[in-house]
Order: sequence, then C-alpha cells, then structure tokens
Amino acid sequence: MINFKHLDQLERLLHQHDFAMLRKVLIAYHASDIADFLVTISPEDAAIIFRLLPKELGAETFSFLDSDVQEQLVRAFQDEELTHLFSLLQTDDAVDFLEELPANAVNRILELTPTHKRRLINQFLQFPPDTAGSIMTSEFIQLKRSMSVAEALQYIRRHGSPVDTIYTAYVTGEARLLEGVIGVKHLLLSDDDETVADIMDQHVISVTTHQDQEEVLGVFREYDFFALPVVDEETRLVGIITLDDILDIADEEATEDFERMAAMAPSDRPYLKTSIIQQSRNRFTWLMILMFSGMLNGMILQHYEEAFLMLPILVTFIPMLMDTGGNAGSQSSTLIIRGMALNEIGFHDFFRVMRKELGIASLVGLGLAIMNFLRIYLQYDHQWLIALTVSLALFGIVVFAKFFGFSLPLLAKKVGLDPALMAAPLITTFVDTLGLVLYFEVANRLLSLR
Amino acid sequence: MINFKHLDQLERLLHQHDFAMLRKVLIAYHASDIADFLVTISPEDAAIIFRLLPKELGAETFSFLDSDVQEQLVRAFQDEELTHLFSLLQTDDAVDFLEELPANAVNRILELTPTHKRRLINQFLQFPPDTAGSIMTSEFIQLKRSMSVAEALQYIRRHGSPVDTIYTAYVTGEARLLEGVIGVKHLLLSDDDETVADIMDQHVISVTTHQDQEEVLGVFREYDFFALPVVDEETRLVGIITLDDILDIADEEATEDFERMAAMAPSDRPYLKTSIIQQSRNRFTWLMILMFSGMLNGMILQHYEEAFLMLPILVTFIPMLMDTGGNAGSQSSTLIIRGMALNEIGFHDFFRVMRKELGIASLVGLGLAIMNFLRIYLQYDHQWLIALTVSLALFGIVVFAKFFGFSLPLLAKKVGLDPALMAAPLITTFVDTLGLVLYFEVANRLLSLR
Repeated sequence: MINFKHLDQLERLLHQHDFAMLRKVLIAYHASDIADFLVTISPEDAAIIFRLLPKELGAETFSFLDSDVQEQLVRAFQDEELTHLFSLLQTDDAVDFLEELPANAVNRILELTPTHKRRLINQFLQFPPDTAGSIMTSEFIQLKRSMSVAEALQYIRRHGSPVDTIYTAYVTGEARLLEGVIGVKHLLLSDDDETVADIMDQHVISVTTHQDQEEVLGVFREYDFFALPVVDEETRLVGIITLDDILDIADEEATEDFERMAAMAPSDRPYLKTSIIQQSRNRFTWLMILMFSGMLNGMILQHYEEAFLMLPILVTFIPMLMDTGGNAGSQSSTLIIRGMALNEIGFHDFFRVMRKELGIASLVGLGLAIMNFLRIYLQYDHQWLIALTVSLALFGIVVFAKFFGFSLPLLAKKVGLDPALMAAPLITTFVDTLGLVLYFEVANRLLSLR
Repeated sequence: MINFKHLDQLERLLHQHDFAMLRKVLIAYHASDIADFLVTISPEDAAIIFRLLPKELGAETFSFLDSDVQEQLVRAFQDEELTHLFSLLQTDDAVDFLEELPANAVNRILELTPTHKRRLINQFLQFPPDTAGSIMTSEFIQLKRSMSVAEALQYIRRHGSPVDTIYTAYVTGEARLLEGVIGVKHLLLSDDDETVADIMDQHVISVTTHQDQEEVLGVFREYDFFALPVVDEETRLVGIITLDDILDIADEEATEDFERMAAMAPSDRPYLKTSIIQQSRNRFTWLMILMFSGMLNGMILQHYEEAFLMLPILVTFIPMLMDTGGNAGSQSSTLIIRGMALNEIGFHDFFRVMRKELGIASLVGLGLAIMNFLRIYLQYDHQWLIALTVSLALFGIVVFAKFFGFSLPLLAKKVGLDPALMAAPLITTFVDTLGLVLYFEVANRLLSLR
C-alpha cells in the first residue's frame, strides 16, 4: 500500500522530471495505489503520469478513479490518448464512466470510439441504472460444446487477454444461446481429450438484463459464485457480472438502506464529494414531512392540556416515554428491514415475526416498566399511582413500537415500497401519537383528572 | 433455482425410496439448492440424502447449511461418514462448523480426524473470532520461483483439486516466506518457457493473521482482488482469504452496524433463529440505559415548570422539537458512521466535515424554522413571539443535532470505540437535553416568563 514516504518520493521524481525513474517506480504499484497518487496532483501532471504508464495499467488505474477526477483528466487528454485509453477500458468500466460525464464529453468520446464498441456502449447505456444490464460487462470467454479440453484451454490462452475473468467460461450454441458453464479449474483438472460438452454444467443459473441489482446480489449471496451470466429475453448470453463488482453493490445497497432509514434521499456519491446544497436537499424533504406530521402530537397535547395543568409532573415524563418508544421501534424495524434486505425474512413470515416481536415487547416492556415504577415510586414520595400510570403507558408504548416496528416494513414490502422507508423516523412519529393518547387516557382514569 | 414443484418431486422420490432416480435428479442441482431441500426434511432423511450424494457435492452442500442443521445432521451420522465428510471440508468451512458445535461434538469429530488436519484445525480455532486468521483457509496453490510456466500449470493441474481457489497462486521461498503472487490468467497467457520468477508480481499485498476482518474487507474494497494472502508475524504464508467469503463479511459488518446504531447488542445469527429471550437480552440493556439518561430531560422540564404553567401551549411544541432534533442528528451520524465504515471519512477530516455539517445545519435549520414560524403564526392568531421562540429553538436544535451527529462518531473512532455506538439513540438523548434548555431559555427571555 502507498504511504506518505512513497508519495514524497513520487512527487520529487515528478518535479525533477525524472520520468524514466518515475515509470519504473510506478509500475511496481497496484493500479488502486497509483489512482490514490493521481488525486494528490494536478490534472496536467496526472495526464503526464498516464502517458508514462503501460496502457493496460493506465486503463486499470483510470477505472479506480472517482468520476470527478476522471472527468478532469479527460479534459487534459488529447483525442488520440482518449481513444486509446477508452479502447482499453472494459465495457462496464467504460459505461460507468460515461454515465457520470456531461453530455458533450460523452459525445466527444463516442465519436472517437470504433463503431462496434460504440454500438455496444450505446446499448449498455440504455439499460436502466441498477439493473443487471447496467452492471454487466461484455468481455467473457465463450466456448463451444464440441471443443476438447485442450482446445478450450488453448482458446482461452489465445483470447483471454482482454476479458474481465477467464475463470468461468460459458458454452453457447447457435445465436449465442447459453448451453452450459464451466470453471477453468474444472478444465485444468480434466483430461485434455475430454470434450467441453462432457464436463460442462448444463444447469446454468443466470439473470436477465432487466433484473434489479438487488436480486443479482441475492443470487451471489446464495450460491458463492465468482461470476454470473446475464441473458436477454430470448436467453441469449449478452454479458457477465463478476464478484468483484458485487462487493461494491452490496456496499451501495447497504448504504442506500442506511440513508433511507435515517430519513434521507439516498445518494450514490461519497459524503465528502457531495456539496452542502445537495446534502441539504437530500435531508430537508423528510425532515419537513416529519416535522409537519409531528405537529399532530402537539394537537394531542393541547387536547390534554387540562390534565397536565392539574398535574404538571405528567409533562416531565413525556421525553422519556417518547424516546423509549422511538428506540424500541427502531430496534424492531432495523432488524426486520435488514433481514428482508438479506432475504432472511419475507412477508410470509408475518405471523412468526409477530409472535416473536410481541413476546420480546412483553418481556422488555415489563422489565422497563418495573424499573421505571420503582424509580418514580422512590423518587417522588411513594406516589404509586403516578408511578403506575407512567409504567403502564411505558409498557403500552413499547408494545406499540415493536408492533409498528415489524409490521410497517413488512407491509411496505408487500405493496412494493422500499421497506427502508418504514424505519425509525416514521415509526417514531406514529408511536409518539398513539403513546401520548395512551399516556393521558391512563392518567385521566387512574388519577381521576376529570 | 429450486422451486416448489421440484421440492414435491424430490419428496416423492424420497418417500418412494427411489434412490437411484433421486440421486440423478439431485446431482443436477447446485449445493446451495440441495441445502435448501435438506432443511425441509427430517435429519434422518437428510442423512440418507447425504449418503446418495457424490462426496464433494455432499461436503459443499454441508458448508451451505446453517450451523443448527449441521449439528442435527452430525448426530444422525455414523463415525466413518462423519470422518469422511469432515476430511472433504475446506479448513475454513470446517472451522466455522466446529466453532458453533457443543464441545463434546467437537471432541468426537477431532478424535476421528487425521493428525495433520487436526493440528491445523486446532491452530485455526485459536485465532480470535473476526480476525484474518479465523476466516482464512489453508488450501491454496504454492509455486516456486524456478518453475517454468508449463511446469507451474502442470503443478496446478495435478494439485489443484482440493484447494479453495486455483486462480491466484502464491510463490514461496524457504520456510514458506511469501515472495510473489501470480494470477492463473497471467500464467495461461504467458509463454510456456518463461519462469514464474519472470512473470510473478513481487509487490504482494497481504494481511497478517491477527488483523481484524474489517481491515481485510477494506483491502478487498480498495484493490478488487479475488484472493488475499495471510501471513504470520514472520511473513510466512499461512493461508488465503477469497472474495466469496468477503461478501458474507461485508454483509455481517453492515448488519452489526445496523444493530449497534439501533441500540442493540449485535448478534451473528439470523433474526428468525434467535430466541425471544436472546433478542430481549440484546435489546434491553441499551433501552434501559437510554431510559435512565432520558430522565434527565424530565428533570429539566421540572425546572421550567413555572414557564409552561404560565404558557401551557409551550408544551405542545415539545414533541415536534424533540423529533426534529432526533431526525436531524440521525441523518448526520448515519452518514458519518457509514462513511467511516467504508473508509471514505477519517478523523483527519474533522474540520472539513464540521464546515460541511454546519453549512447544512444552517440551510436546513433555516428552512425548517421559516416553515415552522409561518405555520404557528397562521395557526395561532398571529402570535409572532411564540412563533419566533419555537423557530429559534428549532434552528438551534438542528445545529446541535448536526454538531453532535458528526462529532461524536468521529471522536468515538479516535478513542478506539465503535463509532456505531454514537448513533441516533444516544445522540437524540443529548440533543433533547440541550434542546429543552435552549427552548425554555429562549421562551423565558422572549416571552418574559419570569
């Protein structure tokens, strides 16, 4: 990994224009490390570094850069450099890059791209974002069933250079129909004269271009594959998705859930790369919606004004009741939303989850209620009726919170909404409303406030 | 993928004791699908199925089962079956399995295991959980620098069968010192008579056995590797970690953060597999701590009793102020915690993050305050002083919330605590306290309540 001492050395070589030495030092690094170095220098210097790198290493380094740095670099490139770099990018990296560029830059690049690659890229750009089609790559190994193992290995050795992975090969028939799959390990461990048809696995698990990346992720989670074929509506093989891209997608999907669950519009850019304006926009809408729905609770309190004027101490328990309700609901909704994201829980588990959550709510609610009762009883001169009122309300609030916490995410999924929307912030608002009503109704009855 | 029709067919064959046909149907499935079938039938029937499967497929299927099902199955196995199955499991799967078993079952298995494997497993079992040592596997390809490409490929073809991945090979010298790494792709694409020393990459990125799995995950995220070597303190190669295990670890780490951030003790078992008692235990402690610290807010309210008795309407805005503060803080802390988990944000970004969060807090706070002012002004007979009081408090609360939301997780990381502990629940409690003081102090001054 690159450290500050290395960075210093690289910068020194760059400023001394000792390009021969610089090249020699750089090619020993991993592309990801070179990318880390490039972001510390000016785009012009970065363009110079690019000219020094072997072309493949340059293309790989480029694919590790964030899209804003890519864009700056592209501006510093001459046309032929750009064409060359672009021709070395794999289709999925090229498409990722183009998707982030302004339209005029995209046009400049596509004009310089050879027709067959341009056609491919245009096709890839049409897949809706976050579908299998948009994340697949078109570079993979295709074998024929009639090949012998020796021929297949020979073919891979000859044509394997530009592909994303050579470790899983796909067997296709007429019109690229997907017929089988075979790991290169299997080829290597088989006798030279066996045929591909003999040893290939005919039961290929595949996804279609329009499937959501979340489903693709689910398949990788279930089967531990290193690569997965993508087919079109006619089961013709059009691309593959490799496991190294899946790790990014798992991170992306989890981040999206984290953001939704904290009442934000999800963003696919890193925190430090989003502007204050953009961040404010992502956060404002939900805060406003929740603020206005929180006003309902104000109206409820107004309704019970008489009660808390007779016994002002009642007001002092409101924050504790509200916070506990919010936290209890947040626990349930978080577990259910995450369980659904990992395919461990589905709507068909509704009643199983309900029994479990209500069991937990009873135990936890009872524990909290007892501790709370004792605290108030001891702290407030043995006023056991007040202690009982608060504790009963607390128990009820925990049960409400757990109930909404598990049921709203499950129902959201059922009706096709993202369950992550039914997280702590929204559930807290619901639970607060019901909780306040419960609290004051209990108080009115037990403490004879009217 | 397996569906209900297939399950029906499999069950029918099982009950008709048509084992030849059953075997024929089963071997076409992926191990993960067979595992899905096994959990639907009795352990005795599952043991029968195991006897039908080719041994490798059986071992793979076993590694896809949850640990409780593995345990039931092991009880139904005879000693020699168990020995055989266990000898086919890769070290990491074997260790995972043993870690979940009761001690007497572990002893039964280890007694039946050949000495060299037993020694290896005992060593693996000693690595603390969630370290590189505990997740690595010991089956990998080791080459020597003097080998030619042809010899290396021949070696892989002969010895590649039991290893986890043959796609990355490691070059070791005396005493297993790690000297280089080479992708099988690179071998396949090189000429037969080049030597391993010529084409291997000498700049090997590796981790040590005691590094946390979170750091391992970070390396995979940064470099897009398919496998990563693990060395001991003397840089001797002792194992490798492959990308397919890393996806599980990324999921595990994200789940742990989700749970901590929702004020729960994290659990490594799926929701539906943890008992009500265990779940209650995971959830109770934090709820109780937060409940007691929430009582502080009650004391503050008691302190301002005079104020709200003079102007009871003040009470009705408390829920809205508290909820907005909680939500605003939750947004910031979630983004910062997630950014740190993905290595996008570190403590050295403190001031950059501060500028950003205070900018966002100003914009968002101002927007909410204005909307809130208008709402109260219009709804409550143009009482603009009350509207101003609530709006000023709201603005201050949003700023507090954003401030604690970004700073507490960063500080936690700095002092070696898990930042995920500094999430919404804890921050809400802080912000509520400060918010209530601010609200009533502003009210006392603006509305001359004393």
